[in-house]
Amino acid sequence: MKQKLGKSSIRLEEPVYILGSGSVVGTKEGQGPLGLLFDQVGEDDMFGCSTWEDAESSLQKSAVSLALEKTGLESEDISYLFAGDLLGQSIATSFGLSTFQIPLFGVYGACSTCGESLALGAMSIAGGYADRVVCVTSSHFASAEKEFRFPLEYGNQRPLSATWTVTGSGAFVLGNREAMESMKKTEWEGKRRRPRARISGMTVGKIVDYGLKDSMNMGACMAPAAASTLKQHFSDFGCQPDDYDKIITGDLGKVGQKVLLDFMRDRGFDISCQHMDCGIEIYDGESQDTHAGGSGCGCSAVTLSAYILKQLEEGNWKKVLFLPTGALLSKTSFNEGKSVPGIAHGVVIEAI
Amino acid sequence: MKQKLGKSSIRLEEPVYILGSGSVVGTKEGQGPLGLLFDQVGEDDMFGCSTWEDAESSLQKSAVSLALEKTGLESEDISYLFAGDLLGQSIATSFGLSTFQIPLFGVYGACSTCGESLALGAMSIAGGYADRVVCVTSSHFASAEKEFRFPLEYGNQRPLSATWTVTGSGAFVLGNREAMESMKKTEWEGKRRRPRARISGMTVGKIVDYGLKDSMNMGACMAPAAASTLKQHFSDFGCQPDDYDKIITGDLGKVGQKVLLDFMRDRGFDISCQHMDCGIEIYDGESQDTHAGGSGCGCSAVTLSAYILKQLEEGNWKKVLFLPTGALLSKTSFNEGKSVPGIAHGVVIEAI
Repeated sequence: MKQKLGKSSIRLEEPVYILGSGSVVGTKEGQGPLGLLFDQVGEDDMFGCSTWEDAESSLQKSAVSLALEKTGLESEDISYLFAGDLLGQSIATSFGLSTFQIPLFGVYGACSTCGESLALGAMSIAGGYADRVVCVTSSHFASAEKEFRFPLEYGNQRPLSATWTVTGSGAFVLGNREAMESMKKTEWEGKRRRPRARISGMTVGKIVDYGLKDSMNMGACMAPAAASTLKQHFSDFGCQPDDYDKIITGDLGKVGQKVLLDFMRDRGFDISCQHMDCGIEIYDGESQDTHAGGSGCGCSAVTLSAYILKQLEEGNWKKVLFLPTGALLSKTSFNEGKSVPGIAHGVVIEAI
Repeated sequence: MKQKLGKSSIRLEEPVYILGSGSVVGTKEGQGPLGLLFDQVGEDDMFGCSTWEDAESSLQKSAVSLALEKTGLESEDISYLFAGDLLGQSIATSFGLSTFQIPLFGVYGACSTCGESLALGAMSIAGGYADRVVCVTSSHFASAEKEFRFPLEYGNQRPLSATWTVTGSGAFVLGNREAMESMKKTEWEGKRRRPRARISGMTVGKIVDYGLKDSMNMGACMAPAAASTLKQHFSDFGCQPDDYDKIITGDLGKVGQKVLLDFMRDRGFDISCQHMDCGIEIYDGESQDTHAGGSGCGCSAVTLSAYILKQLEEGNWKKVLFLPTGALLSKTSFNEGKSVPGIAHGVVIEAI
């Protein structure tokens, strides 16, 4: 059913299927280059709630509801939730998902959480523990600024290396072969449902700390972690960059992308043709004033749901490495003068 | 190898072994009833560090080092870490575990995190993804007060329903049968090493929110979640309270214990003979001024390592249900007037 590779990787001989997914974003993301692809774009960024945190909770709830609707499933059909967010004590998750009444594994990997949740979700299905699970992550610009940086009212200036936290949530229903076959017999919007893609392996990241302390340049802080996981992945799977149509980091942004490409070149890998970063794709850097790009664990999640899976479905890409990156800081660690360690989890996603 | 039970439970037909464990605590815990059982008691609660957060990180590091030493393993022998803590963005974990360079799954379930990490760790081993993993969680009285409540210097009064966050970290090396057999051939302190216990199943908890808002009475906030997981566990496994020598919650304290016993009685289960709470055991409520008991994700972890596994090793108990409980709040959610939802994850641990 599966195969351990090296120390950090797992190949799933029987792949796990991404049965369906849902993406919900805020206004700025809706105005960006991928705007038309998202399932739902909020009219404003409060989403009918009275606090930013509640708004983020409602994003998770909507994303899960959409993913269930599109796969024709009820919450009773889901064995486990793998969920997390960027807020202290993951409160977007705690207050967003309680209504589903699904057993919950809370996960935290900063902006790499989408990769971590997909890895654990796929492992639980391939391990035979569940027929279907849901993986969901979120971020919200305003709740993240409040959690990590300055009050919005302060209107602080941001250096060009800073990224803009994506307001959005992406949810993914994973299932085994039986769940996939069963779903294919049902219809949605007049067409037979079909799974979106399949997960065939993963490389789990380590904490990588190069001692960088600039929380306004998280791309540079996270790039070493992306490079570490990527090198481990190539080694464990015995593969090369051109085995992938795309190698997709989560939110390195323009600065982090450059650091990653340099790092990989130094290690003997040229990934410049394959590399794509969700944070760079999600905004128009010129017109949207987002500086280095987008970030947050919603960034990679909504881009995967709306754009990456669509490319795989349409046959434009056959196989990608989805590699969300996380910066392991808090306002406390920052204020105490600590560095910003990074982590990155890689998930191999293939067209069906 | 394993069997799905109901919607929330897994029975491991081939059990996962707790090869060894380590516990490190602060001064107050060292003075408590279990004081002599812990592997290490700090001379003061800074553990040689300059911040409370760093002190908590050093607890995790020491607990993992101890667990590895006692099992005769190096960090290279461990495939994955499942780790978490109570601090915002889990910084005790991020800064405590980087030196081990082991692929990390960050988990968050508030004070239930020890149960969550053991469940996921055992699943990853029984699923064939790893031979050995380490599960570690921590809490620290001072970093938790800073994170959730008042500055220590303020010297706030605490109601009798409040619990005292345990300063401590517990780490557990889990392994499969081969890892266990291989360890048994080695010696430590002149004796053959032997595994401490085995994990034979788990019930994963849901978020349970009864709308309670008193963060100074977390026992009452979490008791409904403990009752929910417990009832589900009895149903999924087709078992009864007296199938266990002990049913051990994490940190309900005296108030939460009473609520749980009442809840279970209402549901037709009398668990008064079996119930034990780590938070009640770890302090002497009379002399240590800790009010309702201890709490924090270090509380259940160090009690499991130092006391519960010892009882199983010595044959005093044969089978226990370890059920750490978590209160899913943050200072932000509290300040915004939200409720305190609970979650509880159950792990079946048996003597070998």
